[in-house]
Amino acid sequence: MVSRKVTLDKLAGPRQPSSETRGLPARRRVGAQTVQFGDPPVVVAAASVVGPMEGQGPLGSCFDVVTEDEKLGKSSWEDAETEFMKRSCRLALDKAGLKPEDVDLLFAGDLLNQLTCCNFAARDLNIPYYGLFNACATFTEGLSLAGMALDGGYAVQALVSTCSHNKTAERQYRFPTELGTQRPPTAQWTVTGAGSVLLSNDASLPGVRITHATVGRVVDVGVQDPFDMGSAMAPAAVSTIRQHLQDTGRRIEDYDRVVTGDLARIGSSIAEELLREAGVEVGKRLLDCGTAVYDSKRQDVHSGGSGAGCSSTVFASYLMQQLEQQEFERILLVATGALLSPTTYQQGHSIPAVAHAAAVEYREE
Amino acid sequence: MVSRKVTLDKLAGPRQPSSETRGLPARRRVGAQTVQFGDPPVVVAAASVVGPMEGQGPLGSCFDVVTEDEKLGKSSWEDAETEFMKRSCRLALDKAGLKPEDVDLLFAGDLLNQLTCCNFAARDLNIPYYGLFNACATFTEGLSLAGMALDGGYAVQALVSTCSHNKTAERQYRFPTELGTQRPPTAQWTVTGAGSVLLSNDASLPGVRITHATVGRVVDVGVQDPFDMGSAMAPAAVSTIRQHLQDTGRRIEDYDRVVTGDLARIGSSIAEELLREAGVEVGKRLLDCGTAVYDSKRQDVHSGGSGAGCSSTVFASYLMQQLEQQEFERILLVATGALLSPTTYQQGHSIPAVAHAAAVEYREE
Repeated sequence: MVSRKVTLDKLAGPRQPSSETRGLPARRRVGAQTVQFGDPPVVVAAASVVGPMEGQGPLGSCFDVVTEDEKLGKSSWEDAETEFMKRSCRLALDKAGLKPEDVDLLFAGDLLNQLTCCNFAARDLNIPYYGLFNACATFTEGLSLAGMALDGGYAVQALVSTCSHNKTAERQYRFPTELGTQRPPTAQWTVTGAGSVLLSNDASLPGVRITHATVGRVVDVGVQDPFDMGSAMAPAAVSTIRQHLQDTGRRIEDYDRVVTGDLARIGSSIAEELLREAGVEVGKRLLDCGTAVYDSKRQDVHSGGSGAGCSSTVFASYLMQQLEQQEFERILLVATGALLSPTTYQQGHSIPAVAHAAAVEYREE
Repeated sequence: MVSRKVTLDKLAGPRQPSSETRGLPARRRVGAQTVQFGDPPVVVAAASVVGPMEGQGPLGSCFDVVTEDEKLGKSSWEDAETEFMKRSCRLALDKAGLKPEDVDLLFAGDLLNQLTCCNFAARDLNIPYYGLFNACATFTEGLSLAGMALDGGYAVQALVSTCSHNKTAERQYRFPTELGTQRPPTAQWTVTGAGSVLLSNDASLPGVRITHATVGRVVDVGVQDPFDMGSAMAPAAVSTIRQHLQDTGRRIEDYDRVVTGDLARIGSSIAEELLREAGVEVGKRLLDCGTAVYDSKRQDVHSGGSGAGCSSTVFASYLMQQLEQQEFERILLVATGALLSPTTYQQGHSIPAVAHAAAVEYREE
């Protein structure tokens, strides 16, 4: 296994709140990069629809729907991925007893060029639509923006959805799968699936709620290999986690789990090391969706899972269940995105990365 | 000139507010798709940096910077476009006497795969970053989200920036420019340039402010030709304008100008016709950034301009100046996005479109 050595002293530390201003104090802001919701938006329903390989992984029994055919009978992989997103959105709405016309805003993202899946899903669902792209960090980007829209009084109900598909991502970002190109041990396997959550502005409802969001800055440590995204993303995760702790005054022990999006095994070990250097012992609190979603002994996924659907499907299934059963009382979800494109890495650029965090907890009331 | 006949009866009418709810009334919401800011965010500074061809157009004297070299001395068009975005962001900050570290949030979008320009600009500016994509509607998507973040109390200062570049867009969406492919009369010319606005939460400042935002739904009337985006986008613009008027109870006469993003000449005439069928006589109030930015008699742009940088550069220059000089007291800016990708149209899909509106007005206090 490759372990790229990025030391903490090469990374910028947490940001301090600015003193220069052309504005007024922001009442829902804490520290330099974190917002604290006054009436924390509640997850009214969550839904996950995944492919067969995800169904065979350790979390298989947690997903709402495991499909037998990852093409879902469609004529293209892109159409199949769009269908995953639509099914997960519709299932979340069904669980809440709502229809698309009852939802004020859809915040959605995927990995395909021009957000193919979201555009067509938003067309068919006919919900007012914000398209988002922060690669695999898009799910927490959406939670944070939906949180502001709901808590700020701009919406009653909002849907956040992200998806990815192994077959569309591989051919777009790397090589057509038909080539059978050998993948290095650092490579990750893009999750096929979509996760959606329906959020409500009624903080009096019992359940899982979003209390804080920390908006990430872009971090670039010079990784140029599109088959080693964990090394590129780990420093971004560390930056956002440190910023969150500084902004909120919380300690890592205040979270039952710090859940990264898709660092996979190599990225997770780098993140753990860097956090240790920063004096944060994350230890067994660190849980990575990309590591959790596949069984690396049985499934040939190399470093682990990835994709915009990785954190959303794991959150909408296993994590929601653990929170609702109060196995976890509070988690910090830190989805991580490698902001590469084939054009940028073919032109010799390194891979910028970003991570957005959402603090999530269960409350009876 | 081609004029595709889409009749009003083929389009869905404005949406009604939902009665089914799992939430509480939203205090900043009016109608089904519009938010009304309590303390309307103020544009503290705006900056536009454009290429030589835009500088030679009718608005040439309005732009802050007209570059002589559209490659800006960079080794790739993509790097040049990134530089346009960075320069326009830095110029807006300079005008406000602020530094990147004083800005809480950057809302940015471009047309390139995986938002190349925004990702690298956000890395270099080091501002907490939300990547957005609604094609050429991204600028008003950003204004609407930044508006909620500021008015809702989550940020003090936010930067909204979008860019496009003729040479990057052509080769990504259509053909390499070196091929010299003949373009049909419906084709549009992607604007080279970036427009950025710095918004503050201090509604007591005099100046231009965002009072409302109407979030668009995706409209698809079956246009499949990537060289005819105006026909695809016009119905989306009409949908959002009608929705805005219904939601706010305003009449078209309440706006000095209804400014569409990049319908260009063909799309504008379709929009005007469809609005007339809906009983809305927009007449000379209709101003299209894509039509305004080039001189169609002297410049070989076919139907007119387009691109994520089209509405942002025109807003950050000409429109801001007209508002500040009170030539226009109130405008409705309706940026329009064609949500196509080469993959989707090569797979035979039609072009979905979306439009987001921002109501903008000048107030002394």
